Amino acid sequence: MDKKVTKIGVLTSGGDSPGMNAAIRAVVRTGLYNNLEVFGITRGYMGMIDDDIVPMHSRSVANIIQRGGTILKSARCKEFYEFEGRKKAYENLRKHGIEGLVVIGGDGSFRGAQKFATEFDIPCIGLPGTIDKDMAGTDFTIGFDTAVNTAVEAIDKIRDTADAHDRLFIIEVMGRDSGYIALHSGIATGAENILIPEAKTNIEDLIASLEDKQRRKKLVNLIVVAEGDEFGGAEEVAKVVRQRLPDMDTRVCILGHIQRGGSPSCIDRLVASRLGYAAVEALMEGRHNVMIGIINNKLHYTPLDLAVKAKQKIDKEWLKIVKILAS
Amino acid sequence: MDKKVTKIGVLTSGGDSPGMNAAIRAVVRTGLYNNLEVFGITRGYMGMIDDDIVPMHSRSVANIIQRGGTILKSARCKEFYEFEGRKKAYENLRKHGIEGLVVIGGDGSFRGAQKFATEFDIPCIGLPGTIDKDMAGTDFTIGFDTAVNTAVEAIDKIRDTADAHDRLFIIEVMGRDSGYIALHSGIATGAENILIPEAKTNIEDLIASLEDKQRRKKLVNLIVVAEGDEFGGAEEVAKVVRQRLPDMDTRVCILGHIQRGGSPSCIDRLVASRLGYAAVEALMEGRHNVMIGIINNKLHYTPLDLAVKAKQKIDKEWLKIVKILAS
Amino acid sequence: MDKKVTKIGVLTSGGDSPGMNAAIRAVVRTGLYNNLEVFGITRGYMGMIDDDIVPMHSRSVANIIQRGGTILKSARCKEFYEFEGRKKAYENLRKHGIEGLVVIGGDGSFRGAQKFATEFDIPCIGLPGTIDKDMAGTDFTIGFDTAVNTAVEAIDKIRDTADAHDRLFIIEVMGRDSGYIALHSGIATGAENILIPEAKTNIEDLIASLEDKQRRKKLVNLIVVAEGDEFGGAEEVAKVVRQRLPDMDTRVCILGHIQRGGSPSCIDRLVASRLGYAAVEALMEGRHNVMIGIINNKLHYTPLDLAVKAKQKIDKEWLKIVKILAS
Amino acid sequence: MDKKVTKIGVLTSGGDSPGMNAAIRAVVRTGLYNNLEVFGITRGYMGMIDDDIVPMHSRSVANIIQRGGTILKSARCKEFYEFEGRKKAYENLRKHGIEGLVVIGGDGSFRGAQKFATEFDIPCIGLPGTIDKDMAGTDFTIGFDTAVNTAVEAIDKIRDTADAHDRLFIIEVMGRDSGYIALHSGIATGAENILIPEAKTNIEDLIASLEDKQRRKKLVNLIVVAEGDEFGGAEEVAKVVRQRLPDMDTRVCILGHIQRGGSPSCIDRLVASRLGYAAVEALMEGRHNVMIGIINNKLHYTPLDLAVKAKQKIDKEWLKIVKILAS
Repeated sequence: MDKKVTKIGVLTSGGDSPGMNAAIRAVVRTGLYNNLEVFGITRGYMGMIDDDIVPMHSRSVANIIQRGGTILKSARCKEFYEFEGRKKAYENLRKHGIEGLVVIGGDGSFRGAQKFATEFDIPCIGLPGTIDKDMAGTDFTIGFDTAVNTAVEAIDKIRDTADAHDRLFIIEVMGRDSGYIALHSGIATGAENILIPEAKTNIEDLIASLEDKQRRKKLVNLIVVAEGDEFGGAEEVAKVVRQRLPDMDTRVCILGHIQRGGSPSCIDRLVASRLGYAAVEALMEGRHNVMIGIINNKLHYTPLDLAVKAKQKIDKEWLKIVKILAS
Repeated sequence: MDKKVTKIGVLTSGGDSPGMNAAIRAVVRTGLYNNLEVFGITRGYMGMIDDDIVPMHSRSVANIIQRGGTILKSARCKEFYEFEGRKKAYENLRKHGIEGLVVIGGDGSFRGAQKFATEFDIPCIGLPGTIDKDMAGTDFTIGFDTAVNTAVEAIDKIRDTADAHDRLFIIEVMGRDSGYIALHSGIATGAENILIPEAKTNIEDLIASLEDKQRRKKLVNLIVVAEGDEFGGAEEVAKVVRQRLPDMDTRVCILGHIQRGGSPSCIDRLVASRLGYAAVEALMEGRHNVMIGIINNKLHYTPLDLAVKAKQKIDKEWLKIVKILAS
Repeated sequence: MDKKVTKIGVLTSGGDSPGMNAAIRAVVRTGLYNNLEVFGITRGYMGMIDDDIVPMHSRSVANIIQRGGTILKSARCKEFYEFEGRKKAYENLRKHGIEGLVVIGGDGSFRGAQKFATEFDIPCIGLPGTIDKDMAGTDFTIGFDTAVNTAVEAIDKIRDTADAHDRLFIIEVMGRDSGYIALHSGIATGAENILIPEAKTNIEDLIASLEDKQRRKKLVNLIVVAEGDEFGGAEEVAKVVRQRLPDMDTRVCILGHIQRGGSPSCIDRLVASRLGYAAVEALMEGRHNVMIGIINNKLHYTPLDLAVKAKQKIDKEWLKIVKILAS
Repeated sequence: MDKKVTKIGVLTSGGDSPGMNAAIRAVVRTGLYNNLEVFGITRGYMGMIDDDIVPMHSRSVANIIQRGGTILKSARCKEFYEFEGRKKAYENLRKHGIEGLVVIGGDGSFRGAQKFATEFDIPCIGLPGTIDKDMAGTDFTIGFDTAVNTAVEAIDKIRDTADAHDRLFIIEVMGRDSGYIALHSGIATGAENILIPEAKTNIEDLIASLEDKQRRKKLVNLIVVAEGDEFGGAEEVAKVVRQRLPDMDTRVCILGHIQRGGSPSCIDRLVASRLGYAAVEALMEGRHNVMIGIINNKLHYTPLDLAVKAKQKIDKEWLKIVKILAS
């Protein structure tokens, strides 16, 4: 049986996402409620190596549930890729007596946690914090719902102009390997076409559908493109469209980093709160090296090394619905 | 085997909810795509009785996916409770050749649809459109996610003042029979207490927890109360608090109708689009008198008479999380 | 000539308003830039009496320009009405060597500052921080623009429901002595009638105009009422309307405290920044006991005792425009 | 004396801006109130040439005050540069009996109106509708306040990530010839540097100030750049920064078209309502070929040919405030 955990650490790692603060708050308060000491580690694994580690109190996490970003900051950390770095990190944790770790981040962060936990016997619990949602073992990632609502609000604004000028807008949203933000924001804004990494972009079909709309005088058009779209992103698509349909008034808009920030949506706060609570329970129950997700509204535990590899599948039916509803 | 449907009607009934327009759009465009004629019926069952029924085109539903309210309007309709009213409604549908009906609304609306469909052999498909989420057979209702985010944004604003003045705010949110909005918005805003119809309000516990916070100098406090809370709503709670804790600077805020309106959230637009699409498919497949919901991310069909009765259960674990996270 | 100021204090007093933090930031950073020491005083005059006074650094005000509320908190303070209280406050300021004070608040706060400055020779600069805008000597008060935009967004949401159901909504906004929020938000949302403290409410005219609209089948109606409306607020108006026009579906909505909070608008941040900067310059120039406002885009200095008394006048032309545009 | 106007037209021209719909509504309803006939002209001058001209009723402008874009659509129109085009436009106006024109747009649109009005004796009233605010003869343009608030909200979101990662963000906002959006949004978000077309960009100063901040470990930095900045926009600035300060984690974000759309702010709705009302009054009083603006809260009439040329000046004091407050 695992020994009883009495001191735990929490950190955020990788790209920040809205709701990370709500997760930190839940970890800290659930820990304190269970008479654990909870330490905040600054700038992800960097803070472990630099001993940027401070005790957290209930007040430390007051009034943050509604804030974007992360009060613990985040950073990439090359040293943690090396054994020497991880060893130094371990020694710092030991110094503080930390016996368990909650890592809020994406698959890259979990790979690091997995390696570290194997080498040094500090149980790690991963919480999926990423706007991209491309993670096995969970229906929700902390930040996705906010990011996609930010994208939707931005595209709604662009639609006002598209409509006023009968223009075609090609809008690039985040998602280097994943089309979730593109697909959800595209459906929600009535986009005519949605280009994602998970599906081959048939540029001829796209041109044909635009020509058809030109004939039918449907001149307002939105195309939503994931940045990792296999065709090469919004600018590349625009290049072809302008060449083939020079009469169309075609504009490009790249939404960029606004999608990462902002006050988290209700769902992201709930998911973050529930997962933060569950992370502490998991450490207390002696679990280790799992990512906690939510599937079918139930907690789901995925070994960290499996959390890193798998991808979710985009539902074919949605792609059909897109075509029909934008017609 | 059911005969093939060629003309369908769509209406919104009961209290409006954000996303109803997205559902109407999906019904209309999916119908047209399948070469059906689609009729829009104005002001719910009233429009059926008054023959306020017009053909819808693809353009009729352009640029509405992002709008709150309902372009088809909604209304209560006493005449539809009477057989005479329903008969008149039926005759009007017949006149237009309408062979199937999509009703977007709540349990009251479904009761009406159930009765009507039994008497007159017009298959009815119900889509759950209500901000309250208290409906059997679905994890989502169209409008809930928007309503709860509106409540969260409003409470975040109130927290600014609570924090500036070290005040206790007792905030009433919608939910006559259901604590979902209260529970979700309360957790998401870090409320200290959440009072809901589904759980007995222990006012002594509430007072004790406030006294404890006074002792610990935690002076900023939010209590979120569902309007249908068994204790009698925010004003009643405030009355007791002011009497028992006269030193506390206690204020009441009733969020009211802002929770019904506004541009729908991404999820509400997706749910509405998917259900609207599914409603037409269901009519074409010969289904009748079911509400279509989503459970575990799959479509779920509930007979209309069962959709009206059941209530969802509030998870006990959430009530525990509330206490711990607000500590 | 006045002696050179080297240490100053800043406090927020009275009801909080969005942009107060931006003003605090500007005072602190402008002070530090000019090599002054700047002290933050907590909970208004209460903090002066309780010696809740701490030195502020550039970092103390980092990342607050966008936050609602006030990091210095605010409070009413009965002791400050008494000479004994003010004397104690003065002694605490002396202890820290504070030679000038920036008071961000409303007319009540300025009355206190005026009295204090007369008795104890600490120059006071007032900055108008109130959502009500009812202050002589300035076109802008910190917080008004945000409050009125919050009201507008809320009323837009209510309009969705009003429109869906053909309802009359009577909406009460803040403004105990002032109709600015009501007037601006009412015009901006296309309200049919706007009731304010500055104009006598002719209830017969109101009823007549509603009857006229009923005849013309214009069924969606918004009436915006300031809480200090001479007729007695939204509930009183509703009582009469329901009695006289029982067929109208009439609802009341009281927006309440959401109007005080939230992230400040661009204008409120600019006004706060400019006034905070000017307050420090004013203290350095030896000015005392003036409120700094902005009139015709230029700084304007009003003696504190005149800042308290005057009221702005509501432009008659606007009342005419309301009638015409809502027709 | 001018003959009495009985029929007028209204159009929107050039880039759309939030609040144009509120202006259209005010023109239509004020016209109808004064027993004029009001015609809506679609797609700016294009609609005049193509005879895309329809009578407007009170209902035509219901429920649009809160909408971004323009229900009359807008377009560039090459034919209107030619005398032939303008003649055709005139003939179409004559056909409908239109004797006066309200043109909502920017300086380019006013140049066209000026030319047209000189040749054909149709009095034209210009209303400044542009997000850029770079127009002589007015303190406000319809759309500026909304655009700048949209920019502020977007930059607030980016700040969350900048703060989480200790990054430098270089953010490009709209403003090809004007730094107003950059200046206002930059001050309001606490940007360290603001680069605008009206002031020469000293790149050495910029680098020096960033180096200084690096030394002081102030790692979160925002630079706001107007697209027409003389140095060449955000990407050019980033190129130099990355070369000179390779250790900085530097990112570029171009806000783009989201700044044009969205529901207008309270001020933009008020300004639009007041100007729309004034435009009809002006036509009825026999004024012609003036742009109506607001200066020091009073209506101000500028001959159309002067409205096109002048530029406002950026206040030097603001540039000083920027430096001090971001320190």
